Amino acid sequence: MAQPQQSEGAGTGKPPLRVGMVGYAFMGAAHSQGWRTAGRVFDLPLSPELAVICGRNADAVRAAADRHGWAATETDWRALVERDDVDLVDICTPGDSHAEIALAALAAGKHVLCEKPLANTVAEAEAMARAAEEARRRGQSAMVGFNYRRVPAAALARRMVAEGRIGTLRHVRVAYLQDWLVDPGFPLTWRLRREQAGSGSLGDLGAHIVDLAQYLAGELLAGVSALTETFVRERPLPTAPSSGLAAVSAAGTGQVTVDDAALFTGRFASGALASFEATRYATGRKNALRIELNGERGSLAFDLERLNELSYHDGTEPGTHAGFRRILVTEPDHPYLDAWWPPGHGLGYEHTFVHQARDLVHAVAEGRVPEPSFTDGLQVQRVLAAVEESAEKNSVYTPIAA
Amino acid sequence: MAQPQQSEGAGTGKPPLRVGMVGYAFMGAAHSQGWRTAGRVFDLPLSPELAVICGRNADAVRAAADRHGWAATETDWRALVERDDVDLVDICTPGDSHAEIALAALAAGKHVLCEKPLANTVAEAEAMARAAEEARRRGQSAMVGFNYRRVPAAALARRMVAEGRIGTLRHVRVAYLQDWLVDPGFPLTWRLRREQAGSGSLGDLGAHIVDLAQYLAGELLAGVSALTETFVRERPLPTAPSSGLAAVSAAGTGQVTVDDAALFTGRFASGALASFEATRYATGRKNALRIELNGERGSLAFDLERLNELSYHDGTEPGTHAGFRRILVTEPDHPYLDAWWPPGHGLGYEHTFVHQARDLVHAVAEGRVPEPSFTDGLQVQRVLAAVEESAEKNSVYTPIAA
Amino acid sequence: MAQPQQSEGAGTGKPPLRVGMVGYAFMGAAHSQGWRTAGRVFDLPLSPELAVICGRNADAVRAAADRHGWAATETDWRALVERDDVDLVDICTPGDSHAEIALAALAAGKHVLCEKPLANTVAEAEAMARAAEEARRRGQSAMVGFNYRRVPAAALARRMVAEGRIGTLRHVRVAYLQDWLVDPGFPLTWRLRREQAGSGSLGDLGAHIVDLAQYLAGELLAGVSALTETFVRERPLPTAPSSGLAAVSAAGTGQVTVDDAALFTGRFASGALASFEATRYATGRKNALRIELNGERGSLAFDLERLNELSYHDGTEPGTHAGFRRILVTEPDHPYLDAWWPPGHGLGYEHTFVHQARDLVHAVAEGRVPEPSFTDGLQVQRVLAAVEESAEKNSVYTPIAA
Amino acid sequence: MAQPQQSEGAGTGKPPLRVGMVGYAFMGAAHSQGWRTAGRVFDLPLSPELAVICGRNADAVRAAADRHGWAATETDWRALVERDDVDLVDICTPGDSHAEIALAALAAGKHVLCEKPLANTVAEAEAMARAAEEARRRGQSAMVGFNYRRVPAAALARRMVAEGRIGTLRHVRVAYLQDWLVDPGFPLTWRLRREQAGSGSLGDLGAHIVDLAQYLAGELLAGVSALTETFVRERPLPTAPSSGLAAVSAAGTGQVTVDDAALFTGRFASGALASFEATRYATGRKNALRIELNGERGSLAFDLERLNELSYHDGTEPGTHAGFRRILVTEPDHPYLDAWWPPGHGLGYEHTFVHQARDLVHAVAEGRVPEPSFTDGLQVQRVLAAVEESAEKNSVYTPIAA
Repeated sequence: MAQPQQSEGAGTGKPPLRVGMVGYAFMGAAHSQGWRTAGRVFDLPLSPELAVICGRNADAVRAAADRHGWAATETDWRALVERDDVDLVDICTPGDSHAEIALAALAAGKHVLCEKPLANTVAEAEAMARAAEEARRRGQSAMVGFNYRRVPAAALARRMVAEGRIGTLRHVRVAYLQDWLVDPGFPLTWRLRREQAGSGSLGDLGAHIVDLAQYLAGELLAGVSALTETFVRERPLPTAPSSGLAAVSAAGTGQVTVDDAALFTGRFASGALASFEATRYATGRKNALRIELNGERGSLAFDLERLNELSYHDGTEPGTHAGFRRILVTEPDHPYLDAWWPPGHGLGYEHTFVHQARDLVHAVAEGRVPEPSFTDGLQVQRVLAAVEESAEKNSVYTPIAA
Repeated sequence: MAQPQQSEGAGTGKPPLRVGMVGYAFMGAAHSQGWRTAGRVFDLPLSPELAVICGRNADAVRAAADRHGWAATETDWRALVERDDVDLVDICTPGDSHAEIALAALAAGKHVLCEKPLANTVAEAEAMARAAEEARRRGQSAMVGFNYRRVPAAALARRMVAEGRIGTLRHVRVAYLQDWLVDPGFPLTWRLRREQAGSGSLGDLGAHIVDLAQYLAGELLAGVSALTETFVRERPLPTAPSSGLAAVSAAGTGQVTVDDAALFTGRFASGALASFEATRYATGRKNALRIELNGERGSLAFDLERLNELSYHDGTEPGTHAGFRRILVTEPDHPYLDAWWPPGHGLGYEHTFVHQARDLVHAVAEGRVPEPSFTDGLQVQRVLAAVEESAEKNSVYTPIAA
Repeated sequence: MAQPQQSEGAGTGKPPLRVGMVGYAFMGAAHSQGWRTAGRVFDLPLSPELAVICGRNADAVRAAADRHGWAATETDWRALVERDDVDLVDICTPGDSHAEIALAALAAGKHVLCEKPLANTVAEAEAMARAAEEARRRGQSAMVGFNYRRVPAAALARRMVAEGRIGTLRHVRVAYLQDWLVDPGFPLTWRLRREQAGSGSLGDLGAHIVDLAQYLAGELLAGVSALTETFVRERPLPTAPSSGLAAVSAAGTGQVTVDDAALFTGRFASGALASFEATRYATGRKNALRIELNGERGSLAFDLERLNELSYHDGTEPGTHAGFRRILVTEPDHPYLDAWWPPGHGLGYEHTFVHQARDLVHAVAEGRVPEPSFTDGLQVQRVLAAVEESAEKNSVYTPIAA
Repeated sequence: MAQPQQSEGAGTGKPPLRVGMVGYAFMGAAHSQGWRTAGRVFDLPLSPELAVICGRNADAVRAAADRHGWAATETDWRALVERDDVDLVDICTPGDSHAEIALAALAAGKHVLCEKPLANTVAEAEAMARAAEEARRRGQSAMVGFNYRRVPAAALARRMVAEGRIGTLRHVRVAYLQDWLVDPGFPLTWRLRREQAGSGSLGDLGAHIVDLAQYLAGELLAGVSALTETFVRERPLPTAPSSGLAAVSAAGTGQVTVDDAALFTGRFASGALASFEATRYATGRKNALRIELNGERGSLAFDLERLNELSYHDGTEPGTHAGFRRILVTEPDHPYLDAWWPPGHGLGYEHTFVHQARDLVHAVAEGRVPEPSFTDGLQVQRVLAAVEESAEKNSVYTPIAA
């Protein structure tokens, strides 16, 4: 194939936003789709370009670059961070490297998009939030990738809460249910090791629902009481991955060092009650993030497995004709929908990354702090830390550090 | 109208089971329907007769007797309990009188059906369970009215769990959501006063879901961590009820002395995790008792608002064709269904009382301890007490007394 | 058991309405439940009494009387019709005997409730409607048993259409799907023989949906175009039924002489379009009567398998928050619901017969023509005849005789 | 912006498939997304390049090219068809120009993708099918764009039918419901004019469901009986579109010359019955394409508004545990899903165009006749013609020409 590659996204006549992405697995593919599509669908002030992709294995990263349309490759994220032709660093690695990469990127003057959870520890997250605030004064933007805020139905729910449609909040109940660990023979991947993943379902799924619950409620949690559990404590080691680490033996087993499930209740600042459940053992539930908010004037409910729908009960209507209505969130005045298809023609999971790219491009161009910011990400981290502390202390109610 | 009345239920040629019922409000109407219908639908060993109904107001109880088909009336439950022509005392009063009536009825040699929760305190429940065990030796039966066990879909779920269809249990999540207290102008009825109701949503709704969760799981809770809340602490006093208590002023307000909502998490003896929510503030949810069980081999889910359906995921099927299936629980080999209508012709809420009557009649005739027994009711009471204790002690995990 | 029996329903101090019922199979059981319960739940002007039940086999009818609570028995419907202690004759037999019994009952001065379809031929139905109109002048009431009008959700839908909530009607689509004939080994019961049943799914299921569609629409069909089919044309003869007809051989097979499925489209008087499907071959659909009406201002949808729910779309709302809402039809101001349970506590199939009894008792007491009248039943019969005519004539559009 | 543009899709090291697209409205945007994405997600034998886009207005087509990523533009489709740097012509114009463009493109040696319906008349479609068969001998591929075959759930349904999972087919019921014409003030766009659109809901929606029903059933319709209607016969003329046609007056009205709704029943070759409804007047239904197939061994159901789900009833299971199951069609062994996201992470409407591009690229590379071919499109056209003929002839059953 001819070199040099021209970046996808070039040629629209707008100033470019040159993206350098670290990591190219599941999140890398999803982010690539987001960067590649955003400027084709939305009218953006900057034109995202898929400039550089980085991974440790040269052949694998080259293949990923070709597959996903990135112009150049790097095998050391430090090199990527220092490149002059990169404006924004997109971090799609496991949580244990988020802090180091993000701090370096901010120091190098780049905008940053960092996958969730922001970090594996509160201390790391604090450093990142501080660095983001300093970088902010230099005009840099830093966003954490809680992409489910960008589901149109979730954004519509947020808008309706902000409009006062459900009134004083009483209850938030939210669960994120998956089932890929039900089989005890599923191997001990990095997501099951504390040193890389930080925590288990808590950081992976729980981080999403804590952010989404607070975002939709428009207020923060004050404290939590938690139970966590590891149902299967030993699992087979994975066979050698494509990265060729010869030291990995396929025969042995290893300890699962993270939670399999986390249940917690909490109080919002306003006094509303909340319940949370994050698990990878809900047999038959594939990606069931479900949230319901009950207020004095109405209720809203959402299920990620039916992501084009929002359920709404208007409590101010006469009871005779009232009921939960299924809003098909595909109307032109619904969030993000003016740029897509006619009513009834639904979107999918990956569109959250297109919308995330869109929102970040606007924030960068307009010099605004993007939402959710690193400070928002830090606050979620503090909730997760309080959950772990409560679980260790016999479920005692544990306030969230301010 | 001519006297003497003949009891409804007479004339079937079977030995009678003469029922004396205390209370004639909502539960009284539902139990009447149960006693009146059970022998018309099921082939019972004894023929239930609606012999005597008791209430404090003579005119009101006479009207209730005519309406519901009871042959005689009493205005003092002590008189009812002593009548020779009563074989079984059915207690449909608020919780504060359960213990006294039940103890007297058992002492008088009667079988007893007592509405849930069994009592307002663990001490009362202990005395009742002891008395029931002693009465058992004299051949008397005593059952507590957790009628939701008698929804055919719930009974089918229990059967499927017992057959091993969901395997090792991992999660039970259950909520009982109503919304009749959302309006702060709703008056301070007896259900909002601790001295009569014992507790609020906890005893009313929470008792049901604790019993149902343990029944379906086939095991007991080991401990709980809880949050409770009273959102609206002062409410208008009710206007004078039909009982004519002149002292009640319509103008004033009074304190709500029970919980409005209770959230708790827990562990089952096997290590499975559970989450519970009972509330009367879930705007738009009218009677939404929802329970889901996830096991290593499958899952089951149920919603009381669609009570003829059971949702089942068979985790042993190939993923390609697997999914939660909606079993319409109206087939002749489903629990209780051989006696009702053809497939697809659903039942309603009140049928749980018909089934409860059927099951109790069989237990009485066969000299078996009915399920759920007073001992089962006592155990639920202990869970509720642990919930209240945990809520008072900063949500600390609180073991259930054995 | 002591004789004489006192009727169920006696003793309420109201003038009695003494019912004599012919037939005691599925419909007999359902009607018994209706007559037994109506006066216990609703405040009726007359007190229904289960006076006499009639069937050809003396032992079987005696057992049915005991089971369902009827005071006396007859083995000849002519004797029942002539009894002085019968005020109303309830006809629950197959369609081939409807006309003869109804005409005799009307001639004998009785009120009549006749199961649907009104008759097996238009000629019979015409005679019945004429006789009912004459009897009407003598103060007698005659109703045909389209019980699904009495599902609260259907009655609410009718009310909402009448209130103009869906505006000018454009579409009615309705299907009644069952699956009990899928197995070619299912025997040739009377419902599959033209001489007894008149037609197959058309008269059994199609009659219901034609009546319901016209009732909800508030207007009549003008014409139809139809396809019918008999998928399995030969079936095993049934084994000897409990009536002991020794001549029936279990070994042979016989011809299915009725339709297995009927599909038809039609035009309403207003120009709205309608589609109908009635089948017993919809594998997995047990009793799925589904109807949807689309009007210029809104839509309504209903599924008998979830009979406590009505789906409503208000087309006048802003699209942003509009959607089909699920009305849980259990509020006190919903049709029939003031007499039942609190919100969210649903009813079942058999309640339609309680409501039917209630409505007929009111019509009798108030001297009104009950709805649906025999004239309404005749009109449905004419639609069914037009369907059969169209099917025979290559589906040509066939007007409904006026 | 710098010239020359490099095509999107270049640089993957694979032989290119250079696409020239005619039309750039709704379908143009959707097809662009399909061509741009297919090679980024699937491992294709050829690399699609967005080479040339064509529209009559130079400025508008230039803007569309920039937006969607096309390298070059044309304002005359004849010029596009003749370009040496175009391998495949993708026709996204209204139906009245399909035949002319397709015939020219095939004559020029191009592969062709033509939007549905294939043509506005059977005669045009016959000419196109003949030309495609001739071009086939020269190695050219021609496909008609029935994209809903490419919904993974629909493709899975087809696979399951082919595997025999539902057995002998008895019923197919299918409706395609939209509501964008409910408002009589909606203007008279080209879709409401016979000379451009050919027909109304019949060709737009009916073509989709005829194709899908036959595809899923695996057999063809033998004949139909039809009703069509135009509810609103006069509508306001559209205001001047952005193309600036000054001759259009906003004040006047014009005749609607197509059907608003079409209902038809039919028989499949095997004797199975089918019912179809296509309408733009189903208030509240936005894009509700619903299809259900009932067979002797099972049933399948699908709703485009929940396109990641397939409902399946296995009729061979014991009734006790049987029920319609909701298969979340997101597993790696589901059609097209190996290339997308983990289980539970759903796709959207536009993915059908990605899959269509993928399938066509494979057919081109492998020299196979793509499905659905122009011959398939012709057969659908014949069904539509039979529907119109039946509707004109008093709904008489009309065989489909072979």
